[in-house]
Amino acid sequence: MSRFWSPVVHTLSPYVPGEQPKQDGIVKLNTNENPYGPSPRVLTAIAAAAERLRLYPDPHATRLREAIAVHSGVAPEQVFVGNGSDEVLAHTFQALLKHNAPLLFPDVTYSFYPVYCGLYGIAHKEVPLDAAMRIETADYRRPSSAILLCNPNAPTGIALPRAAIAALLAENPDRLVVVDEAYVDFGAESAVPLVAQHDNLLVVQTFSKSRSLAGLRVGFAIGQRPLIEALERVKDSFNSYPLDCLAIAGAVAAIEDEAWFIETRDRITKSRDVLTQDLEQLGFEVLPSLANFVFARHRSRSGTDLAGALRQRGVLVRHFRKPRIEDFLRITVGTDAQCSRLIEELRGLI
Amino acid sequence: MSRFWSPVVHTLSPYVPGEQPKQDGIVKLNTNENPYGPSPRVLTAIAAAAERLRLYPDPHATRLREAIAVHSGVAPEQVFVGNGSDEVLAHTFQALLKHNAPLLFPDVTYSFYPVYCGLYGIAHKEVPLDAAMRIETADYRRPSSAILLCNPNAPTGIALPRAAIAALLAENPDRLVVVDEAYVDFGAESAVPLVAQHDNLLVVQTFSKSRSLAGLRVGFAIGQRPLIEALERVKDSFNSYPLDCLAIAGAVAAIEDEAWFIETRDRITKSRDVLTQDLEQLGFEVLPSLANFVFARHRSRSGTDLAGALRQRGVLVRHFRKPRIEDFLRITVGTDAQCSRLIEELRGLI
Repeated sequence: MSRFWSPVVHTLSPYVPGEQPKQDGIVKLNTNENPYGPSPRVLTAIAAAAERLRLYPDPHATRLREAIAVHSGVAPEQVFVGNGSDEVLAHTFQALLKHNAPLLFPDVTYSFYPVYCGLYGIAHKEVPLDAAMRIETADYRRPSSAILLCNPNAPTGIALPRAAIAALLAENPDRLVVVDEAYVDFGAESAVPLVAQHDNLLVVQTFSKSRSLAGLRVGFAIGQRPLIEALERVKDSFNSYPLDCLAIAGAVAAIEDEAWFIETRDRITKSRDVLTQDLEQLGFEVLPSLANFVFARHRSRSGTDLAGALRQRGVLVRHFRKPRIEDFLRITVGTDAQCSRLIEELRGLI
Repeated sequence: MSRFWSPVVHTLSPYVPGEQPKQDGIVKLNTNENPYGPSPRVLTAIAAAAERLRLYPDPHATRLREAIAVHSGVAPEQVFVGNGSDEVLAHTFQALLKHNAPLLFPDVTYSFYPVYCGLYGIAHKEVPLDAAMRIETADYRRPSSAILLCNPNAPTGIALPRAAIAALLAENPDRLVVVDEAYVDFGAESAVPLVAQHDNLLVVQTFSKSRSLAGLRVGFAIGQRPLIEALERVKDSFNSYPLDCLAIAGAVAAIEDEAWFIETRDRITKSRDVLTQDLEQLGFEVLPSLANFVFARHRSRSGTDLAGALRQRGVLVRHFRKPRIEDFLRITVGTDAQCSRLIEELRGLI
């Protein structure tokens, strides 16, 4: 604490990301990283771009916005890019979600959302998931400024179909609906095709998971032009060049390599099915995930105990000490060998 | 405009960075980039780090903070790193400069400062430079919450000695003094050695200029622990990983290659002296610069005309259409060949 702090600093409860252990040999299933690495074309593109490091990057990241637009079937002007979807979300909170009524999001969801609210002084209300840990869109029929859903939701992995998002958009023409699709590529339906019809939809995605570029920090938002313009105005009042020249080049190469994307995604979704069955055989309840992780609790063992015991055995999973989910483990779908190691350790523990 | 915009978005006047032309063959002296490129070790380090792109970066960028600490003679806990000094400054405005009295900075300085004030709703007063375009620290003896100086100042290039900063700190023990040292490595005295004695000092620096890494987006701040903690609290409420793994690795390699730094810096400061003399011979008044650019006006030709004519001849310099400085050109010190080309074109114009 210091007399120099702005008042807001005293009130913040910063987000705590999953652990990044420095030692080798850990089976790391705690931060939903992709086990297979990015397209080899990414490394080639980065090496070429490194020749231009002395120059500022394109502040508009035009090549990347064009590549995302082609891939997503929208116009480049409907794409906003940022330093990971966390930065894109931060700008979204400041640019589009600060109004005179509360923002709504689920009680169990990405735990960064209430942190952003604290940073920008945004009132919010948490809407409980139903008993099966699902988002029930009918529960969002209450006074609010906007609705924020993570789809598939984290940490549950459960997805809403596109039709449910479409109905929510139609019911709320004067409220913005932000859909955070960090995990959408592993089997869920994206809301991006709804952007053309709905001026109240903003979709946020990331290169961290399905493109295996967590280390490169690239995220993006897709929406109609006025929403993107709001994000650009805030970004250009904050930092002109949030994407360095290597990130721009690497992300372009990643999104253009569709074959690599499909192959690695399919491996992960197959492993997810096997992991789910193995966990169920060990007595876990596993929520039906369409993400690159599963959310599971054992019928008799506490989440705290299991996460701690796995950690001692060199296997990291994510555990949240929070109401409703303290007995769950969030387990990233790793390689088949990593998943087998996890199951083997659990078999020894249960 | 849109009904979904947060109220602040309507009021923003975003910063406009210098042009990044896409065509080749331009002599680009408009954004103060380093003509020599970064240490070759940077490319090696980036290639090695690219093997880890699937993993999240270290959210604390520990290796980089340690390398900066060693280089600057401070503790790693006294170092904050961000996505370019623009992001570091943005967090500084939000974390440390939003109080109930106005922030003071010069009337002619980095034009992003009033933009940050707009983004965060911070009152500010601009203190005029003296008739010779110098910062006169005695003019900052007026009610305020904090003082922000760019040293050497941009776009003038004129530097205050360390003793003047020390006196300002001693005179204002209860006001934070932020010194933006983006250009300090080209001959000015850094305020970093004053950090140990003054809890009211925060120094901001960048890898973009003297380390030739504008394309990598790495900046940092040095101050006593409570100031750094405020920045960390805001950063961890905004984006956990603003530095990607390539930026961390590249910046570490850059700061560890002192020989490359000294050699390229000395080439630039020698070229600055030659450029200054050449401009003076052509009838320019050149402010005494300790930066990697000069700020110059011709005794009879308007800045608008000269900048436009140079542009037509393929030479970009920066021109600001602002009171007091509209007849000045801000010219980056390029290679000797680039500087000669500029002088040659000017000779044809004057």
